[in-house]
Amino acid sequence: MSSKNRLSPGDTIGILGGGQLGRMLAQSAASLGLKAHIFCPDPDSPAFDVSAGFTVAPYDDISALDRFAAAVSVVTYEFENVPGPTAAHLDAKVPVRPGVRALQVAQDRLSEKQFLTEAGVTIAGFAKVDSQEDLETALTAFDGKGVLKTRRFGYDGKGQLMIRGREDAAGAFEKIGAVPAVLEDLISFECEVSVIVARDLDGTCASYDIARNHHENHILKTSTVPAGVSGETTASARAMAERIVTGLDYVGVMGVEMFLVRDGAGERLLVNEIAPRVHNSGHWTQDACLTSQFDQHIRAVAGWPLGSAERHSDAVMENLIGFEADGWRAVLEDPAARLHLYGKSQTRAGRKMGHVNRISQKTV
Amino acid sequence: MSSKNRLSPGDTIGILGGGQLGRMLAQSAASLGLKAHIFCPDPDSPAFDVSAGFTVAPYDDISALDRFAAAVSVVTYEFENVPGPTAAHLDAKVPVRPGVRALQVAQDRLSEKQFLTEAGVTIAGFAKVDSQEDLETALTAFDGKGVLKTRRFGYDGKGQLMIRGREDAAGAFEKIGAVPAVLEDLISFECEVSVIVARDLDGTCASYDIARNHHENHILKTSTVPAGVSGETTASARAMAERIVTGLDYVGVMGVEMFLVRDGAGERLLVNEIAPRVHNSGHWTQDACLTSQFDQHIRAVAGWPLGSAERHSDAVMENLIGFEADGWRAVLEDPAARLHLYGKSQTRAGRKMGHVNRISQKTV
Repeated sequence: MSSKNRLSPGDTIGILGGGQLGRMLAQSAASLGLKAHIFCPDPDSPAFDVSAGFTVAPYDDISALDRFAAAVSVVTYEFENVPGPTAAHLDAKVPVRPGVRALQVAQDRLSEKQFLTEAGVTIAGFAKVDSQEDLETALTAFDGKGVLKTRRFGYDGKGQLMIRGREDAAGAFEKIGAVPAVLEDLISFECEVSVIVARDLDGTCASYDIARNHHENHILKTSTVPAGVSGETTASARAMAERIVTGLDYVGVMGVEMFLVRDGAGERLLVNEIAPRVHNSGHWTQDACLTSQFDQHIRAVAGWPLGSAERHSDAVMENLIGFEADGWRAVLEDPAARLHLYGKSQTRAGRKMGHVNRISQKTV
Repeated sequence: MSSKNRLSPGDTIGILGGGQLGRMLAQSAASLGLKAHIFCPDPDSPAFDVSAGFTVAPYDDISALDRFAAAVSVVTYEFENVPGPTAAHLDAKVPVRPGVRALQVAQDRLSEKQFLTEAGVTIAGFAKVDSQEDLETALTAFDGKGVLKTRRFGYDGKGQLMIRGREDAAGAFEKIGAVPAVLEDLISFECEVSVIVARDLDGTCASYDIARNHHENHILKTSTVPAGVSGETTASARAMAERIVTGLDYVGVMGVEMFLVRDGAGERLLVNEIAPRVHNSGHWTQDACLTSQFDQHIRAVAGWPLGSAERHSDAVMENLIGFEADGWRAVLEDPAARLHLYGKSQTRAGRKMGHVNRISQKTV
């Protein structure tokens, strides 16, 4: 490294996780003249194919972690469920970015909601649920409705249960595994939007235009930019996202998911959850911005200044899930489309195999 | 392969040459879900870091070539001086694209000029020179002026000599090594422009907007798009480029360099030379088009349809040569710039270390 905590071209970034996000981070690192070293227990990780080095080992293999730490100048990660002891062990040897604190907060829905409240952003009402009794009490406060979510390890709709009345509530705590949970107030929202925000080592923030997200079977299907919301809403979304990363002393890219609520009082946003990493709803930046979210994350964790988050085109990102990826040839025939495939050797239902960015001339 | 000569995601493209062009081709292959296998004699090749597989061996190592051919579905190359026997040996086992014929033509300036003439594109006058006597004869026909170039292995100004009069002509054939050469008529041109053209397996062509190129010390320094020429000139450039790739039954991307001549008769173009590969003057397409020249080449050699060659932004590409790459931090501070570094371990004067694309809103 040229100076403390800042990398120079030729240095190596360590990445925990070898899925598609690690792969696209490694590709950006290479484009910027950096080397990537992937650490992943899966010997068939798609990120290995595009990285200068890799380690196949469990996340609790201390000697493998030590060798990894010695081989890299900084460590980042593609997923928020990096085990706490893994992050702490590495952080004692080499900078871990976005940061151990961001992982702690994002790994526990309750800590996350408490942090978001303290950071002064608006979120839906919530209550801590450690028993069926807690649940019943909380439901009373929320008009008998809500979404019960485990505090840890939920994603793509897993570990959650919708409660719309008495019959859903019965035995619900048992159904989600009788583990620490939270009940979220059931919000009537028009759609989910998200902001991809970045913060560098000097505290400068940059956020991309907000995207309107559409899910199918609890998995993100499309992200559309522009999102069709007012300038005030966009500004508010960006301001909240920047308050969050600043509050965490965060270094890197974060995805912030929000509910867009439209009612008599107008348009407003409630932060739903944060992902302390590059985010699926930011893949559109690869083809509609000069600096993609992957480039941006690499720049930040390298201790480099952020690039422009300006958008030069409108974009719709569509995920290719499971056997949808078999339609790759039709995507290639579409002149407005750019195909991105992750090089996964096995196609499985529900597995993210690739995505398509369709761009058009910028309208707003 | 899913069908004869056409690849499917997961298949492997073999690339001869591991420099920056091979590296950027490998990166595009990965983004499209293909694997890259680089063949290069240099154990320190920058392309290895981003490729699923590589072979370090001389280009005449038959058993290494056989193993390489067995490991890939198609072979392409990053440089036009692939030895003829290497290409022929591989071509007997696996498709070599853009093609053996394109290599033969491009490796010999005389064959190239003869082919271009037959293809019906306009070029500067030329004469075959195998001796000082031939040179004197040719100079008489060209008003005593011309550029003497070796027929083989010239690039970035190497293997050429400018002759402006008697004193330059004396001993000139000896000076360029007394090897087969051509004399080109010395053209008074305003600038060099280039067209990046692609042709797919079905014969469909697509060409990018033409770029205006500026050289320093015989090495490309910048490429600017739009080039500031008339619509007729652009159309003529594209038509000539498409005639060339069609004449060669070419599959892949080609760089076609042309002289822009402006005189009393208006604006016209003379084809200077062709490069049967992705080309430095096409690097701007990475950030100003949805389909970069690297994606386009991979699509073509994979037997896939071409992508759109439309441009969404204006662009200036600047090469970072030798120690200019030390200025990477200043590039990162420029919000209009995207930095591309090649991961070369040694910086040397005259070596291409990276490039910068600066984009702005599309004007024409």
